[in-house]
Amino acid sequence: MQFDLNPDRLLPPEQPTRDIARTLYESVKDLPIISPHGHVPISWFAEEQHFSDPTSLFITPDHYVTRVLHTCGESLADLGVNQKDFTPEQARNAFLLLGKHWAAFAGTPMRYWFEDSLRNVFGITRQFGPETAGEIYDELNALLATDDFTTRKLVKKFNISFISTTDDPVDDLHLHDQVAADKEFGVRVAPCFRPDKYLEPARVDWPELVAALGKAAGVDTSTYDGFYEAMRRRRLYFKEHGAVASDHSHADAGTARLTDAEARDLYAQALKGSISKTDATRLRRHFVNDQAKLAQSDGLTMTIHPAVYRNYDYQNFVDFGPDTGADIPDKVDFAAGLRPLLNEYGNNPDFHFVAFTMDETEYSRSLGPLAGFYPALYVGAPWWFIDAPEPILRYFQAVVTAAGFTKLSGFIDDTRALCSIPARHDMNRRLTSRFVATLVADHRLSLDEGLQIVHDAVCAQPAKVFKL
Amino acid sequence: MQFDLNPDRLLPPEQPTRDIARTLYESVKDLPIISPHGHVPISWFAEEQHFSDPTSLFITPDHYVTRVLHTCGESLADLGVNQKDFTPEQARNAFLLLGKHWAAFAGTPMRYWFEDSLRNVFGITRQFGPETAGEIYDELNALLATDDFTTRKLVKKFNISFISTTDDPVDDLHLHDQVAADKEFGVRVAPCFRPDKYLEPARVDWPELVAALGKAAGVDTSTYDGFYEAMRRRRLYFKEHGAVASDHSHADAGTARLTDAEARDLYAQALKGSISKTDATRLRRHFVNDQAKLAQSDGLTMTIHPAVYRNYDYQNFVDFGPDTGADIPDKVDFAAGLRPLLNEYGNNPDFHFVAFTMDETEYSRSLGPLAGFYPALYVGAPWWFIDAPEPILRYFQAVVTAAGFTKLSGFIDDTRALCSIPARHDMNRRLTSRFVATLVADHRLSLDEGLQIVHDAVCAQPAKVFKL
Amino acid sequence: MQFDLNPDRLLPPEQPTRDIARTLYESVKDLPIISPHGHVPISWFAEEQHFSDPTSLFITPDHYVTRVLHTCGESLADLGVNQKDFTPEQARNAFLLLGKHWAAFAGTPMRYWFEDSLRNVFGITRQFGPETAGEIYDELNALLATDDFTTRKLVKKFNISFISTTDDPVDDLHLHDQVAADKEFGVRVAPCFRPDKYLEPARVDWPELVAALGKAAGVDTSTYDGFYEAMRRRRLYFKEHGAVASDHSHADAGTARLTDAEARDLYAQALKGSISKTDATRLRRHFVNDQAKLAQSDGLTMTIHPAVYRNYDYQNFVDFGPDTGADIPDKVDFAAGLRPLLNEYGNNPDFHFVAFTMDETEYSRSLGPLAGFYPALYVGAPWWFIDAPEPILRYFQAVVTAAGFTKLSGFIDDTRALCSIPARHDMNRRLTSRFVATLVADHRLSLDEGLQIVHDAVCAQPAKVFKL
Repeated sequence: MQFDLNPDRLLPPEQPTRDIARTLYESVKDLPIISPHGHVPISWFAEEQHFSDPTSLFITPDHYVTRVLHTCGESLADLGVNQKDFTPEQARNAFLLLGKHWAAFAGTPMRYWFEDSLRNVFGITRQFGPETAGEIYDELNALLATDDFTTRKLVKKFNISFISTTDDPVDDLHLHDQVAADKEFGVRVAPCFRPDKYLEPARVDWPELVAALGKAAGVDTSTYDGFYEAMRRRRLYFKEHGAVASDHSHADAGTARLTDAEARDLYAQALKGSISKTDATRLRRHFVNDQAKLAQSDGLTMTIHPAVYRNYDYQNFVDFGPDTGADIPDKVDFAAGLRPLLNEYGNNPDFHFVAFTMDETEYSRSLGPLAGFYPALYVGAPWWFIDAPEPILRYFQAVVTAAGFTKLSGFIDDTRALCSIPARHDMNRRLTSRFVATLVADHRLSLDEGLQIVHDAVCAQPAKVFKL
Repeated sequence: MQFDLNPDRLLPPEQPTRDIARTLYESVKDLPIISPHGHVPISWFAEEQHFSDPTSLFITPDHYVTRVLHTCGESLADLGVNQKDFTPEQARNAFLLLGKHWAAFAGTPMRYWFEDSLRNVFGITRQFGPETAGEIYDELNALLATDDFTTRKLVKKFNISFISTTDDPVDDLHLHDQVAADKEFGVRVAPCFRPDKYLEPARVDWPELVAALGKAAGVDTSTYDGFYEAMRRRRLYFKEHGAVASDHSHADAGTARLTDAEARDLYAQALKGSISKTDATRLRRHFVNDQAKLAQSDGLTMTIHPAVYRNYDYQNFVDFGPDTGADIPDKVDFAAGLRPLLNEYGNNPDFHFVAFTMDETEYSRSLGPLAGFYPALYVGAPWWFIDAPEPILRYFQAVVTAAGFTKLSGFIDDTRALCSIPARHDMNRRLTSRFVATLVADHRLSLDEGLQIVHDAVCAQPAKVFKL
Repeated sequence: MQFDLNPDRLLPPEQPTRDIARTLYESVKDLPIISPHGHVPISWFAEEQHFSDPTSLFITPDHYVTRVLHTCGESLADLGVNQKDFTPEQARNAFLLLGKHWAAFAGTPMRYWFEDSLRNVFGITRQFGPETAGEIYDELNALLATDDFTTRKLVKKFNISFISTTDDPVDDLHLHDQVAADKEFGVRVAPCFRPDKYLEPARVDWPELVAALGKAAGVDTSTYDGFYEAMRRRRLYFKEHGAVASDHSHADAGTARLTDAEARDLYAQALKGSISKTDATRLRRHFVNDQAKLAQSDGLTMTIHPAVYRNYDYQNFVDFGPDTGADIPDKVDFAAGLRPLLNEYGNNPDFHFVAFTMDETEYSRSLGPLAGFYPALYVGAPWWFIDAPEPILRYFQAVVTAAGFTKLSGFIDDTRALCSIPARHDMNRRLTSRFVATLVADHRLSLDEGLQIVHDAVCAQPAKVFKL
């Protein structure tokens, strides 16, 4: 069956909103992509790499996809997850499994992104499904072997003007330096400071992590003051190497500070491994607050996306490791959790603080009102499970009336699935146009204002929030 | 005033979505009804019974209706609730009260179902309301006295292919056997294993319940091991007599196991009446986990719908008993509560576990993501207070992007209001068509895919989930 | 740029719903305004006052507006908040700031109300924005100096038939008496009994407050019994002076009673300043329950809107005081909190109890079901942060299927921004028409029923709920 993408997909089907949305979308669809948060490995930008096969591009590393196949009853092992030796035949079989279970993806954004990628990146014109998965696999495989579909070629083809990776604080960032020095490449790639595990004193490996941090920073981290200084230096190091943001994900949104004395004391206990669970949580919240404190001077934008049960399924974690689709969103309480941080730093307009969530109840109840008062706070776009048409529209409907458009984060794709990046950004542009079109159709905005708003949403707003 | 049901009711009013929805709905509207969970008494299927009057059919047993009349200021006594001697005159007056307060039902599904029943089951052509309630009562009364409107005639008229009752674990199910043996009847009627009260060790009557269970099972239930064995046997007994599911409703979604030793100890305490409230809750959560454990071998689908304040109003409970409209939904936390159960049994695709909720915040935050990973888990359709057009559409909009269509439970009517069954299923088919039509209109699905999805939603999906 | 308000603004853009909504809206748009809860100072009704300038009318007292300018990085001081000497030049500059940041208001109701006020109250025909703010300021300033735009002239122009202020229990209400005696004025203005601070025994100034209450009531309040009697008398005093309601806002929805002995004991502790935080909360919940108890005899409608973090930002409170935009909604649990109150008084149809919330999750989960059972309970319209088009439509979509239209509170504007009152009521009429139009378009209601419902929503329903 021949397949093509309808040019009006995701735009409102009814008139007069459709025509307005078309006009809005046309005005932004070809603008360069700004991707301020994501998980593409820096090595893909540093070297002209070939993907070994379509499965390692589209399935194995993408927990959005593997989790659906898992719920269809397939083993993650058969999808290549955490497999040391995964043969070409196994890879092809994994792709056939995707075809077999294609009906399970109906209505999900994964299907949308995948079809968009097949058509727009690889020029596939057959409808993907159980019958065609094999042929399409072979077609993709052949294309990936050519020089037109290497990592760097793809990125350039995608018209990305800025993209951020996500990096360990002890990383020396030499690959980032290499990419930055490569004038021919022409895409700005920034590292992002992601210190999560160094801020979790309850981890059994925390003393080693802290020691490694100290080594990277050239500071003795055997005391809290040394730890704080090491963090300060590594953040600056990241900034000097192009970073614009730090990124944080912990079990809750807590940010209460301890007294200096208590922080020092709990830090010492944590290093000895004698800290209680409760105190470890209190110390972690203090550490998160510290990151905001440090941002007051180094100016990195701070992004948080708390409250996920990581590795919800114990055996799955043992067998396949983290980030394989068994993470589940938790409730979050931003108003209570962020109060210390916002009271201390929220009134500083030069501090940029973005809160992401998958707990949609927080949009109208706390994040909208908070961002409608605190200059520092921006409401993060829907991510992960709610980076999909219906929830994205709900997000706009919940946040804009309280916080307006100028306190939104702009879109982030947050993905390690390289080929989905243009599809994701395009989807968001369509949905932003759709929402703004409803305001124009309601006579709440003029069309000219609508055009300005969708343009800003794609360009000016992320550039402002992430200080590009 | 003449009244008729618009054939397009509940379909999207705007083009082009309306035409798509019409096509989808037309394709499923006449399919047989599968009703995997409900509360119609088995005796209605076993014998050709006459309803004594319209009030005892439409008002007295239906807490959806009585609660609205109560909030209008009427006493439940005047509606026949818990009344031993309710005269024909009182019954007619109760129906007049429904007419008097008909405006209070505007916008509610109860109005929708009632009008649908009047027109499609009884052929009433007058608009129901304060002026016509009496005449319509008399008209219905005359019809109910005929042989065309007995319980079994109605069920056959409704084109029901499968229907489940809800039953006590000690029931000998002889009426079910009788119905099953009645080849002429032609409707498959299954019992459902509903052990709630036997799993609540805090109840004052729990020791007697447990003794009765033991007697029914032929096992000594004076120990935990005996209790477990009795449960095992009674579930098997139910299965042998046609059951496909067990059904559970407790105050929370907790499923944490105790150690065997602790379970035995707390069980003994509970039998002696010396168990603490906290331990009773812990033991109950263990019992619920046991039901999932037993399902691994007997294969019954397990459905839960936790977190309702039963008998919220104390005096109402004293005066009128349970299930009279004074039950109120509570918050629920599936991610935390189900973690033990899902970690242990959730990866077994042969175990089918359906979670229903009235806490809509859980759909996108936890149930969608959980069902998008665990093969065992299906997201239950909106029930009770949210079995209504707007919440049903919200459910689809919240769940499908995360879990797709193949991890939905399919519709359940959950009702004891016999005549509302076809209206409820028809309403759901209209709304399913409406939602799927939006995806087709958005160019996210082809019309052919949409047709397949609505057909599966009505037939294949409930048959799969409940292993019919 | 010329600017006008589209007559169809906020009505559904698509046919056939648009035409239905137009018909509904036309039928109610010119009806008099009933405003049962608000914050306009009584002095504005008592005397013919001139507003000193547009900023003191539109910006300084309106925390909806100041918070947005604050999040844009402006200091509240520059907006005149809590400034003793604010010069005409500063006032004009504040208005220029509003113009400068006008884009930040796109999509918010504040923009909608402001434009509506400019056009409909002051006849401004220029588009407000950075370039025109100065000229419009001067134009408004000139109009405010005339006798056509005094406080009383405005109120009469707005076609308000009933409006409530919000008042301190110790107020002697002489200004209300003066307004009531002024037969020429012709607007019914009622005080509202708002005892919040007298019910908070944890406040450091509570002993003085209680003493002042006693003095006003002519009762010795050194004991709990005296306090209760003082409350009883002041409520009656308010009722005799025109009040129809008491209004309550505390940190949670708790209403549990203490025993009399415990209440007396904790009251004594509180007066001595020795009460614990926990006990102060328990005593406050008892006090709130007392207010409901008193309403059983005096008949005042009781409205609550709990769960807001007042003065969330500490330094902002120190610098600028309360009600300046730094209040943030909190989660609320109505089902648990209200259970004691509803069990005791909820079945009394003569008791009218209205629960407002900004925690939208409560609408379908608890408030709809509770109001669908308890005659006393009405679900309050969306207020404050959620008094905006999208959340108002969500409110209808969440509540009506469970509780119908007859258990809604009707609209309240809750504002101190005088000129926004007609715009707010008009916005609500448009949105009510929009929602009801969807039910008509769905063939769930006839057009005649829709017309009745929107008319009742504007007139009969608030008159019933507030016993006007």
